[in-house]
Amino acid sequence: MTDAHFEFAVLRTDGDARRGVLTTPHGVVQTPAFMPVGTQGVVKSLTFEQLQGVGAEIMLSNTYHLYLRPGDDLIARLGGLHRFIGWDKPMLTDSGGYQVFSLAERRKIDEEGAHFKSHLDGSAHLLTPEKATDIQAQLGSDIAMVLDECLAHPSEHGAARTSMERTARWARRARERMMALRSGPVAGVTVSNPGQAQFGIVQGSVYPDLRQESAAQTVAIGFEAYAIGGLSVGEPPEVMYEMVGVTTPCLPADRPRYLMGAGTPDDLVEAVARGVDMFDCVLPTRNARNGQLFTADGRLNIKNARFADDERPPDEACGCYTCRTCSRAYLRHLYVSDEMTGSTLNTLHNLHFYLDTMSRIRDAIAFGRFESFRREFRLRLSRRLHDAPGGGSRVS
Amino acid sequence: MTDAHFEFAVLRTDGDARRGVLTTPHGVVQTPAFMPVGTQGVVKSLTFEQLQGVGAEIMLSNTYHLYLRPGDDLIARLGGLHRFIGWDKPMLTDSGGYQVFSLAERRKIDEEGAHFKSHLDGSAHLLTPEKATDIQAQLGSDIAMVLDECLAHPSEHGAARTSMERTARWARRARERMMALRSGPVAGVTVSNPGQAQFGIVQGSVYPDLRQESAAQTVAIGFEAYAIGGLSVGEPPEVMYEMVGVTTPCLPADRPRYLMGAGTPDDLVEAVARGVDMFDCVLPTRNARNGQLFTADGRLNIKNARFADDERPPDEACGCYTCRTCSRAYLRHLYVSDEMTGSTLNTLHNLHFYLDTMSRIRDAIAFGRFESFRREFRLRLSRRLHDAPGGGSRVS
Repeated sequence: MTDAHFEFAVLRTDGDARRGVLTTPHGVVQTPAFMPVGTQGVVKSLTFEQLQGVGAEIMLSNTYHLYLRPGDDLIARLGGLHRFIGWDKPMLTDSGGYQVFSLAERRKIDEEGAHFKSHLDGSAHLLTPEKATDIQAQLGSDIAMVLDECLAHPSEHGAARTSMERTARWARRARERMMALRSGPVAGVTVSNPGQAQFGIVQGSVYPDLRQESAAQTVAIGFEAYAIGGLSVGEPPEVMYEMVGVTTPCLPADRPRYLMGAGTPDDLVEAVARGVDMFDCVLPTRNARNGQLFTADGRLNIKNARFADDERPPDEACGCYTCRTCSRAYLRHLYVSDEMTGSTLNTLHNLHFYLDTMSRIRDAIAFGRFESFRREFRLRLSRRLHDAPGGGSRVS
Repeated sequence: MTDAHFEFAVLRTDGDARRGVLTTPHGVVQTPAFMPVGTQGVVKSLTFEQLQGVGAEIMLSNTYHLYLRPGDDLIARLGGLHRFIGWDKPMLTDSGGYQVFSLAERRKIDEEGAHFKSHLDGSAHLLTPEKATDIQAQLGSDIAMVLDECLAHPSEHGAARTSMERTARWARRARERMMALRSGPVAGVTVSNPGQAQFGIVQGSVYPDLRQESAAQTVAIGFEAYAIGGLSVGEPPEVMYEMVGVTTPCLPADRPRYLMGAGTPDDLVEAVARGVDMFDCVLPTRNARNGQLFTADGRLNIKNARFADDERPPDEACGCYTCRTCSRAYLRHLYVSDEMTGSTLNTLHNLHFYLDTMSRIRDAIAFGRFESFRREFRLRLSRRLHDAPGGGSRVS
């Protein structure tokens, strides 16, 4: 497929798992890919040099935060988000919807869109499908997301259907707006990145029939690619995997598939096994700041007193900067001493762990041994879950 | 001169300014040198890779903080401070005295030492000249400082004399303890770095006669080198320069001279002109975290609204990572958004500015043009002082 500067090619499949290459106006991304979350135009505690150093090829930024501060008008005036923040690699922006539902005050949803007050200053705003499209056009990310309705979990089938149908109507409006922006100047909107792609989002809660119906409706509208939303919001992992499994067969094989807001390392492997190509999650970065490190032997809470004189690196099998230069004792000291460098070092390690896992997944698919990789990964799963319960979200 | 692993050689003089090389057990330092402050075994917001990247050859750590947390016993058990924190370059530790005077609760000074309660948990401690020597021996820094009495500014001549004389008595006790540690095992003390040097400290407030007397007494005791303490504590810059100027001629020409806790870039130039070789100050790092950037054109408060859409780097003449990759607009965004990466980027810039200034000072001395360098620097001084008043301290 080609859509202006947006391309996707599947190089190899292994079962339902896919090894691909995504091309964007700011370069290529090897898939399956994990996108570190840079909520306010920065991955917390890292410079972009460090972010590239751990192997990130694409990052995610949050439209809600950037719209409120410093504002998409300012960013557009300064040449778009890539230029503003100094990141010249691929970037995806979400629609802002998820944060409106999770962060904003006094939100009210109607057919028009989401009315809310800023969590920063209480000012009133209205985020419509068109507005979310305009903001992202001004930000100029390589991939924009449509505004979807994010349903609370759990939800009844009836409520889930109503919400899913609204999401489909909003998707149509968002696509129409995108087409208008592509076909000529629209007053008040600066298109910072003419090659920007737009992804539709499949909703439908935990109901297979709704997921399938949502996928059909969204594909019928026609986007550059498709995401699976409304998962990793509190449902059991098995339910999430099942929903992914019923959705991916309904999506075009020649387009990338993006599972939003997931997840644990195990979630990534299981979703790849079901045909997912892209991920984002705050788990590695947020947990790093809370002192939780991902290792091949399970999660490790660096603040634990037993690490006070532990000279080993966080993960003896890891080759990241943190594991090459720091002991658990030192990282614990930085954590208990409230030194922000501790957050940096923990974040470098956790992102390395995630991105290295993705790299190993890609290699496994390329060499046709993904199923054995997945089996080995599962063997460690029970121990890891035993150490600390999972939990993911895309709020940073 | 040679003292075990500690050596100092003056390569070139230009007026009273000296271009030298300091050799320590962990490598060499080109002088005049600036030591970034890593209070708790880390320069706040930086990794050591970043610290080396801006050109730091030596760092300072604070004995008071490390003694209280994680404790010098633990650090000694883990092989000393260099190994604990993963910094294998030269390091200096202060005596802890300054922080006892500025941070600790309910401190009481008598001839024995400084009684105080920890600012962390209120526990009671006694820091004596012997104890300060022992703690630093356990930390294993390359350069240890004697415990001195830090007088409040301003002080009467009589009080300053009394304090200066106590400092001299404490220096004698500290030196005796150091000699005992060097000559054989002392129960309860692990000498982590057998090549550790010990510097004496000249006090005497703002009184030339006391400064000269203190220098004579301290030199008579005999240390590997000498520091000038009790300045940059609120007195006018001219008074500080005068005190430096009366002290350095009283110190041996073949030993490095360290001006403690100073200062502004101008202070560095003026002290070098009076024969000082080493400096430390929290100004570049602390101000960075508060959004104040040093530039060739003066100080810049990045939080200022006028930078919201300013696409220029902080300092157009600067080649640091921050100036190569970030606009003022982005740095302001990070500051107002409370993103810790902003502190990292500002710290990288300010330390680069300080260390680059030292490098230019060294070149100027080497080429015999230090006086013209100093004149040009002074020309910018009035403008810089006009932007923002100076002020330095070695508390982090």
